[in-house]
Amino acid sequence: MRIALDAMGGDHAPMEIVRGARDAAQEFGIHILLVGDQDRIAKELNGEDAGGLISIVHAPEVVGMDEHPVNAIRKKKKSSIVVATQLVKAGSADAVVSAGSTGAQMASSLFILGRIPGIDRPAISTLLPTSDGVVVLLDAGANVDCRTQHLEQFAMMGSLYAERVLGLPHPRIGLLNIGEEETKGNELTLAAYSLLKKLDLNFVGNVEGRELFLGRSDVVVCDGFVGNVVLKAAEGLAMGLLGMFQQELGRMEEVIGRERVLHLLGGLKRRMDYAEYGGAPLLGVDGVSVISHGSSRAKAIKNAIRVAKETVEQKLVPAIKANLEKDTVKGVDE
Amino acid sequence: MRIALDAMGGDHAPMEIVRGARDAAQEFGIHILLVGDQDRIAKELNGEDAGGLISIVHAPEVVGMDEHPVNAIRKKKKSSIVVATQLVKAGSADAVVSAGSTGAQMASSLFILGRIPGIDRPAISTLLPTSDGVVVLLDAGANVDCRTQHLEQFAMMGSLYAERVLGLPHPRIGLLNIGEEETKGNELTLAAYSLLKKLDLNFVGNVEGRELFLGRSDVVVCDGFVGNVVLKAAEGLAMGLLGMFQQELGRMEEVIGRERVLHLLGGLKRRMDYAEYGGAPLLGVDGVSVISHGSSRAKAIKNAIRVAKETVEQKLVPAIKANLEKDTVKGVDE
Repeated sequence: MRIALDAMGGDHAPMEIVRGARDAAQEFGIHILLVGDQDRIAKELNGEDAGGLISIVHAPEVVGMDEHPVNAIRKKKKSSIVVATQLVKAGSADAVVSAGSTGAQMASSLFILGRIPGIDRPAISTLLPTSDGVVVLLDAGANVDCRTQHLEQFAMMGSLYAERVLGLPHPRIGLLNIGEEETKGNELTLAAYSLLKKLDLNFVGNVEGRELFLGRSDVVVCDGFVGNVVLKAAEGLAMGLLGMFQQELGRMEEVIGRERVLHLLGGLKRRMDYAEYGGAPLLGVDGVSVISHGSSRAKAIKNAIRVAKETVEQKLVPAIKANLEKDTVKGVDE
Repeated sequence: MRIALDAMGGDHAPMEIVRGARDAAQEFGIHILLVGDQDRIAKELNGEDAGGLISIVHAPEVVGMDEHPVNAIRKKKKSSIVVATQLVKAGSADAVVSAGSTGAQMASSLFILGRIPGIDRPAISTLLPTSDGVVVLLDAGANVDCRTQHLEQFAMMGSLYAERVLGLPHPRIGLLNIGEEETKGNELTLAAYSLLKKLDLNFVGNVEGRELFLGRSDVVVCDGFVGNVVLKAAEGLAMGLLGMFQQELGRMEEVIGRERVLHLLGGLKRRMDYAEYGGAPLLGVDGVSVISHGSSRAKAIKNAIRVAKETVEQKLVPAIKANLEKDTVKGVDE
């Protein structure tokens, strides 16, 4: 397997990206194609190519975080994200991973890989930690104004992702909403509820914000605006509360000792660390494209590569296609 | 001042409601009218009427949490929430407070008190704790499908609330959105941004979910669907993380001692306790109506009464009316 990794994308590129690539190549034994500035990558790599598992593909341009995504990828044909995505299109790589501009990665994936026929809007599928595991939240920000059929497609793709990549049989699908009752919601969720309950999915009904982190469902579908706001609010709150814990513990430091304070914080940080959960696949494009957090360091990059590897191994894209064809056939029969 | 309190509303009614009323009457020296089943309230009150500050207004019916709000308040003219709201309309009370069905309280407030002329959609205005204080989030769930002018009205009302009741001069008004740039957002927030920046408000631009709890703005406006989901997600996550912290500390108990563990947890719980922040006024109705959390105990009820008292004292409703008239006049001049 070959993963094309955007070596120039993210707050800590290329250093942390190259480190993550090396860790992934060694741990998973797969080929990583580092895409970006030849010289800078070679300097970071310093000859340590994980026994030949790591190679460099030169791409002289970079899309900045502040650039307009569509314009940027149209102008910068030799940018690392465009070249990395083209490697997948050409069959030279099985997946693309980037921690750069999410908009640029979405635009590259849409224009170069294209959408799976039958999918109107690809969705960013993020994993959130819950009290007893993880929940797949989609869409986490790719589509800000969704229609009912988009949520239907998110539900189908999210179910297949949870089943194949997370290994959950009959994933429970929830609809993010403001009340448990079928009668609660806005125009979009009211219409989505009546559609979702008719589908061949394990639909468990509405999931309120409060239940999102309680593991009541394996997949939660929502409009990309809501998903993005909730995801970022959760990140901000988690970090804020960790800060509070740190302050409260600080007061105890003289009593319980610095080592114990650090031990306590370490345990919490591990459990709240989003880097553990790696990247978010852009489900619905005709290829594997995994979005990693802009602040990713080596560990997050390694885990994003793991997500890409498993998504390829579990043949998620073919599974989504097959499911859509099945529905089309069904549609014809009826 | 007289506050009409729905003694039958909430998970712990009437006991905790009556206790909260007694605490508020004693601490604030104001009259509380306990509205509900005469006998049950009298039994809870047990003659302790805070030196005559507490009296009972009999209302034989109760609106259940599972009833359709509008139908329920139409049918149950003698329900505690309807009678309590009528006391305000009649001038026998200055404000109504309830921990019962939010929908029933909204419906009662809309039908009995009515909307302030110029306000299309009253908004639930909740206080959220931030790293350095509180932020007013509105709408927290009254309106699930908002238009641009609704967000404009929320911004104006939220600004006056923060200025008068929270005592913040020139409150910073933010728009909950998925990016900082003016070009980010969905149809609603893109249109709202260009409207809000033209208004006579201290508009500080878009606020991302991550910044919501960082105190970057004093007021954050959003659609009621998004606000409700974010608010409940924050509650759920905060409780979940407190549980994690409890577990981590539990492991340390033998080492640092049970007392210190409890002390640490106490400090954290206080800082994360939503009951501290009391109730959420339904801004935009022609009277003071404060919504308290359904799980409210005595402390939360007392604090909701405090919010009602301050909202009355600071003449928030007249201030909103004056502001709308000013704008109308301005409109005419132009």
